[in-house]
Amino acid sequence: MTVPVFIAEDLSEKEVKVVLRSATQLAAEMAAAKITSEEVVQSFLKSAALAHARTNCVTEFLTDAAIARARELDLYFRENGTTVGPLHGVPVSVKEHIRVAGTHSTCGYKRWQDHRFETDALIVERLKRAGAIVICKTTDPQSLLAMETESNLYGRTTNPHNHLLSSGGSSGGEGALLASNGSALGVGTDIGGSIRTPAAFNGIYGLKPSTGRLPHSGLEGNHDGMENIIGCVGPLARSAEDLSLFCRAALADEPWLIEQSIPPMPWKTDVKVPEKLTVAIVWDDGLVKPLPPVLRALERTKSRLEAAGHQVITWDLVEPETAYKNTIQTYLLDGGDEYNSLLSTEDPAVDSVNWILNSFGVKRCSLEETWALNRERSRIQNSHNSKWNAAEKVPDVILCPANPSPATPHGQLRHWNYTSYWNYLDLPAVVFPVTTVSETDVSSTQFDYRSDIERGYHESYEPAIYKNAPVGLQLVGRRLHEEFLLGVLGEIEMLK
Amino acid sequence: MTVPVFIAEDLSEKEVKVVLRSATQLAAEMAAAKITSEEVVQSFLKSAALAHARTNCVTEFLTDAAIARARELDLYFRENGTTVGPLHGVPVSVKEHIRVAGTHSTCGYKRWQDHRFETDALIVERLKRAGAIVICKTTDPQSLLAMETESNLYGRTTNPHNHLLSSGGSSGGEGALLASNGSALGVGTDIGGSIRTPAAFNGIYGLKPSTGRLPHSGLEGNHDGMENIIGCVGPLARSAEDLSLFCRAALADEPWLIEQSIPPMPWKTDVKVPEKLTVAIVWDDGLVKPLPPVLRALERTKSRLEAAGHQVITWDLVEPETAYKNTIQTYLLDGGDEYNSLLSTEDPAVDSVNWILNSFGVKRCSLEETWALNRERSRIQNSHNSKWNAAEKVPDVILCPANPSPATPHGQLRHWNYTSYWNYLDLPAVVFPVTTVSETDVSSTQFDYRSDIERGYHESYEPAIYKNAPVGLQLVGRRLHEEFLLGVLGEIEMLK
Repeated sequence: MTVPVFIAEDLSEKEVKVVLRSATQLAAEMAAAKITSEEVVQSFLKSAALAHARTNCVTEFLTDAAIARARELDLYFRENGTTVGPLHGVPVSVKEHIRVAGTHSTCGYKRWQDHRFETDALIVERLKRAGAIVICKTTDPQSLLAMETESNLYGRTTNPHNHLLSSGGSSGGEGALLASNGSALGVGTDIGGSIRTPAAFNGIYGLKPSTGRLPHSGLEGNHDGMENIIGCVGPLARSAEDLSLFCRAALADEPWLIEQSIPPMPWKTDVKVPEKLTVAIVWDDGLVKPLPPVLRALERTKSRLEAAGHQVITWDLVEPETAYKNTIQTYLLDGGDEYNSLLSTEDPAVDSVNWILNSFGVKRCSLEETWALNRERSRIQNSHNSKWNAAEKVPDVILCPANPSPATPHGQLRHWNYTSYWNYLDLPAVVFPVTTVSETDVSSTQFDYRSDIERGYHESYEPAIYKNAPVGLQLVGRRLHEEFLLGVLGEIEMLK
Repeated sequence: MTVPVFIAEDLSEKEVKVVLRSATQLAAEMAAAKITSEEVVQSFLKSAALAHARTNCVTEFLTDAAIARARELDLYFRENGTTVGPLHGVPVSVKEHIRVAGTHSTCGYKRWQDHRFETDALIVERLKRAGAIVICKTTDPQSLLAMETESNLYGRTTNPHNHLLSSGGSSGGEGALLASNGSALGVGTDIGGSIRTPAAFNGIYGLKPSTGRLPHSGLEGNHDGMENIIGCVGPLARSAEDLSLFCRAALADEPWLIEQSIPPMPWKTDVKVPEKLTVAIVWDDGLVKPLPPVLRALERTKSRLEAAGHQVITWDLVEPETAYKNTIQTYLLDGGDEYNSLLSTEDPAVDSVNWILNSFGVKRCSLEETWALNRERSRIQNSHNSKWNAAEKVPDVILCPANPSPATPHGQLRHWNYTSYWNYLDLPAVVFPVTTVSETDVSSTQFDYRSDIERGYHESYEPAIYKNAPVGLQLVGRRLHEEFLLGVLGEIEMLK
């Protein structure tokens, strides 16, 4: 699988070569004195500017600071002969609501457009400490509670593969930028699919770890103190190995001494993956059947797994309908009051935000109703784990669509459950690119739709709409077993 | 420090020798075929019966089942020459609200007096799997929300060292039983001091781990689904090494695959403790100054630490008043409604429960107020961690009173903050015995009391009231660093 590339005519051949390298490759080359950080940062800044011109994915460029820092790091390397850390000189991009000193975090609200911060979120501090250089911040949607990236403040971020399609959200700026090779590594967040949907829609890699695994403090957002469902910080990247590099850097130097919800588990680099895997495949989440290209991606991966001697079984989600309903209600325990209080006639809800706020019949919950929701969640988590443990052949991972469709036309993403289900269960999940939509991905025979949403996806489907759209899939692991999950991803990548 | 012993005349000399052994010693002797489990279980059952007759600490004896299981294990050992696990044949006792198949869990409510369960809590299942034998269940107070052990259902559990004093609570049955050598190892729970107060009051050891460290599912109680403050399962024991044995057994065989909130961290047996420790001592929690015997225990430990070349610094708690107020409010987010709904004229609140429900001005919180409480807690946790990290000499542990006083006369425990503070911060804390009250522990000069509670403790104080009362202290560590904490305790124990 080659990651699609969007390189403007005005990048030099050398610059093109630079931005096509993974973060891991770049770090290695800088550590071997084969290239300078200044050169790398300049190339990515240029590429990011072009990506932004095409997709509207950047909210702020840190051009001068980034170049100055690159020079400092180059000087340090020349003088000391060593790097400052595993990300020495690597350009990174950061989703807008994550604090970076000297930049804005507005969550796409006009009302917060002057919110500027002078401190770094802990993840940013850790990446910088490891040598990373923040070159820009990237778009997120109004309120963050959207799976597309659109706000009255920043406008819409489009998909670099097809501008009629969504970049996904809420880390849609990262998705579009990384797929355009405008950054070597990106920092996103995910409470329902916000890393994984942009990864799938843009044909890149994205890891949503278990809650608490990676530093998570220093983010702007709503519902501060609400802990019934918690988001995660995680990487978006252009290779599987870059995801591991990110996690290793984030977990160096004992961040748990600062943010105590992080378990004191350094990133393991020696996990062993069984020679013969058992992979449980979710063909349908019980609510919205995936579209033909997604089913083809599953079939292709299944065939390759079996051809390599791995075992494949079928997996049905435990209580998907209840899980999905409760997930949305849990996002909106106050019935949406806080979101609505930040919107106004000058900043009305954009379509995707309006849809999530008003389509699920959510209500303000009493204290006791929030406890009942927590109990339900624990019950379904336990059922899931019991099912996993009791399987005749215990799965190593679950393979699952990332979305019922490839990147949707703008304003048409209407189903979160393929990703949000794993937030509800709090399990690590990683998205990886598998294929792109083909003209031959025609619709199969009609079936009885279980909902208008499912009907909407299937009746409007034709491959031409999704021209060039990547198709990603999702692997899901056990809680806090991120290393093993990425180890299995590495095996699956080798089958390509 | 010798753990005080209460052995009735009618235990044989041999039985006395058995029940004086630690769980670790017994496990080793059974594994070396020096003694049978049947002999051990019989001795402890007899000792437990005597302990119960004196202190009212047991709710149910599992005599026949325990002896039958002991015989089974003895047979297994004879036939296979190996044990089933690290607790092979070891008698354990379990706090009443923790489910043990075939026993009652009522939380001390008359209304729940027929609540009987046919499954084991996960911790019980794990201990049994490791070879432990449940010999009895032990008293807890009405509602569990009390730091003494009294209910209309079971009556009052007294302190085996002095029956006019409290056994502490809510794991007061465990405290009294273990101190009477009526069990080799006990299972308690702690959301505000419920393992540590009984440990301190009865002169034994008790570990409150970080939330989530040990299996915690399968407990009866109130506020199921409330996650703003969470209790922990932990051991009560008669030696520091028994605490480690318990944790090691509880974390064998990957319990995190069943209860996913447990981080996948097997119990480490190879932690290194610095040769020269830095110990931060809390002399006063800012609310209620400790009584003379507690201060003497601190002074004694300080002198011994310094004599051994360790460094001692002074530690002031971060925002103790706000932390304490918020902790109590968080126990009672519904203003006490659920507790009150279970009480009745037939089962009126006992004194200690009435006091906690009605003395702090708590109220029913709105959803947003619960989020504000969570934010405050995170803020104070972060302040604490920043202070710890920024200390000129970074402490290895904090040494702290377990309570302002030794075991209080019944109905007079009126301050939880020395223990509940560490639940609020979610840090592991272990209590260990240091000394007993002496006639020479006379009151120091008067001072300006900061509250009626502080006045009450000090004005009523005289050593004679606390005759024979043990004095324990508390060591506090970093979150999820239980092994290191117990490693430091081991060092401190060697100074005795």
